[in-house]
Amino acid sequence: MSGIAEVARLAGVSKSTASRALTGTGYVSESTRLRVIEAADSLRYVASTSAVSLATGRTQNIGVLMPYVTRWFFAEVLEGIQDALLARDLDLTLYDARHGTEGRHRIFEQFLARKRFDGLVAVGLEPGDDELERLVALNRPMVSVVGAGDGTSVIEIDDDDAARRATDHLIALGHRHIAFVGGTADGHWAQVDRRRWAGYRGSMSDAGLSAETLHVPSDVSLPGGYAAAVDLLGDARTRPTAVVATCDEVAIGTMIAARRLGIRVPTDLSVVGIDDHEYAEMFGLTTLEQVPREQGATAVDLLLRHIDDPELPPSVVRLHARLIMRTSTAPPSGTGSATFLDSPMGDTGMPA
Amino acid sequence: MSGIAEVARLAGVSKSTASRALTGTGYVSESTRLRVIEAADSLRYVASTSAVSLATGRTQNIGVLMPYVTRWFFAEVLEGIQDALLARDLDLTLYDARHGTEGRHRIFEQFLARKRFDGLVAVGLEPGDDELERLVALNRPMVSVVGAGDGTSVIEIDDDDAARRATDHLIALGHRHIAFVGGTADGHWAQVDRRRWAGYRGSMSDAGLSAETLHVPSDVSLPGGYAAAVDLLGDARTRPTAVVATCDEVAIGTMIAARRLGIRVPTDLSVVGIDDHEYAEMFGLTTLEQVPREQGATAVDLLLRHIDDPELPPSVVRLHARLIMRTSTAPPSGTGSATFLDSPMGDTGMPA
Repeated sequence: MSGIAEVARLAGVSKSTASRALTGTGYVSESTRLRVIEAADSLRYVASTSAVSLATGRTQNIGVLMPYVTRWFFAEVLEGIQDALLARDLDLTLYDARHGTEGRHRIFEQFLARKRFDGLVAVGLEPGDDELERLVALNRPMVSVVGAGDGTSVIEIDDDDAARRATDHLIALGHRHIAFVGGTADGHWAQVDRRRWAGYRGSMSDAGLSAETLHVPSDVSLPGGYAAAVDLLGDARTRPTAVVATCDEVAIGTMIAARRLGIRVPTDLSVVGIDDHEYAEMFGLTTLEQVPREQGATAVDLLLRHIDDPELPPSVVRLHARLIMRTSTAPPSGTGSATFLDSPMGDTGMPA
Repeated sequence: MSGIAEVARLAGVSKSTASRALTGTGYVSESTRLRVIEAADSLRYVASTSAVSLATGRTQNIGVLMPYVTRWFFAEVLEGIQDALLARDLDLTLYDARHGTEGRHRIFEQFLARKRFDGLVAVGLEPGDDELERLVALNRPMVSVVGAGDGTSVIEIDDDDAARRATDHLIALGHRHIAFVGGTADGHWAQVDRRRWAGYRGSMSDAGLSAETLHVPSDVSLPGGYAAAVDLLGDARTRPTAVVATCDEVAIGTMIAARRLGIRVPTDLSVVGIDDHEYAEMFGLTTLEQVPREQGATAVDLLLRHIDDPELPPSVVRLHARLIMRTSTAPPSGTGSATFLDSPMGDTGMPA
């Protein structure tokens, strides 16, 4: 097996430059880094981990803490993180810390304390007080994707603004009876849902519709949105003309429920989501777009800067979500107008 | 911080037993293991990784290789693996090796060769020849969830049998025009799809329907199934009366396409999948159930046995998928019968 000297010679750089390029430590220009990687690749050079660790005092490993991997947003962020780490020759240790599980308890009590990582990316973690204390005690750089921002760097979309613009869009179309679907019934809202609920209420209030706000609790999932919408839409007398869903999974569940009840989208019901989920285009869903894969990659960039420079102050990167108009939103139908004649349910009795 | 001696004293066991229980090496009864973990927990004892590694020659880390984390099956397997590893105090390093990416190339050329793991779980990996050579050269225990079984242990469902029974179910209901949706158009079928296609053909052949077999290529995803089904179902003259989908995501995409085209499931079209995906119940999908989370946990059990005993011969665990009958399958409609009168599309012209 070739050594670092051969790699450096082939790439036409010094041994220390080759070492920096391969370990991701210290500054190397992108073109040099690529040249060194190509040289290492052609020589089948693989840095010995223990040698790298001894030389740098680093594990060459990043920990990723998230409460699920089975939901679209989290899986996409994870792939974005993985891509960014692979490109920098860093390993990824996954800590799937589902709320309320023994596994989560063990992660905070045992796994993290071993510090087998140079830094952590926490995704939508929402740590409890005890957990936060443990994280602080680690004294390792951490970046959050969607987070509380308690002194650490954060990457997230502006959730309040996204929900506000989703609601503004419906109000501009002429809707007044607009429900917000999302946020669990038991009061333990995810922070993201709380902010989106606030954005919705802000928009309604600005339009003089404070008395019309309606919260419909829903699990944050496609089946959750479906179940909530079946209840919400079942009674034609109280049915809203439009729904702001806390995310696309809930929005799509709502659309599927509407179809099953014979309620046409957007003729009888407008629906808007937040995400631009992989299914959004197929369902023609109007939504506020975020790109979780890029959020993951950005979190890695920022984390590595924190690792390189312990004095770097924390920053909050708040991304703007773009409105993508598709076919799930339209002006509300007038009472008794022709648009109801061919509805499978006949006149829905909705207010004009 | 407490030492192993205090933990052993509190648990009422010897130091070596406490050490075995906490490192997951060698035999300890489940009740003793739990008692030691509780003692360690109450004392906030955390084993030093380097001390454990020195004592055991092990990394206390398992690598997981998979081609996606964004698909239901893979994310579920991953959570099953994570749970099993957390319970045994082992770290999880993720290698998300998407086909055709630079990241996958780097994983095989660089990351794996560092051997920062005691063993590997490969999930639906389908390695190329070069990749397989690299895996063999690692000389580390490996277990596959869904795999080629080239000398390594494998956990999977009996795919041929599952597709065969899905097709048998439709034939028993009276269907003769049954399409198989799945398997890409370019000939590079995933092994799982090839086996399911073979099971479908076997069932059709046994029923004297070899001349009726129809393969409809589809990306293995919900939007993929939707797109394939829009083409398949668009022409009433050639439309089948039933579909065997290679997995539930494709089946659900097919059901959504059918609804959008005004084709009623199951009156006008029966659909059966394989998976019991989290959305299957919501869509009333008849399917062959597998539990990927348990497959992940079983893979960890088997891998740890291989790590403990290098002489253990490889085994193939082939699980039986259970038929779950819901509302997406029914006998085919008769031509011109009353069931067509209220169809939005009128007589569909399907053969009796």
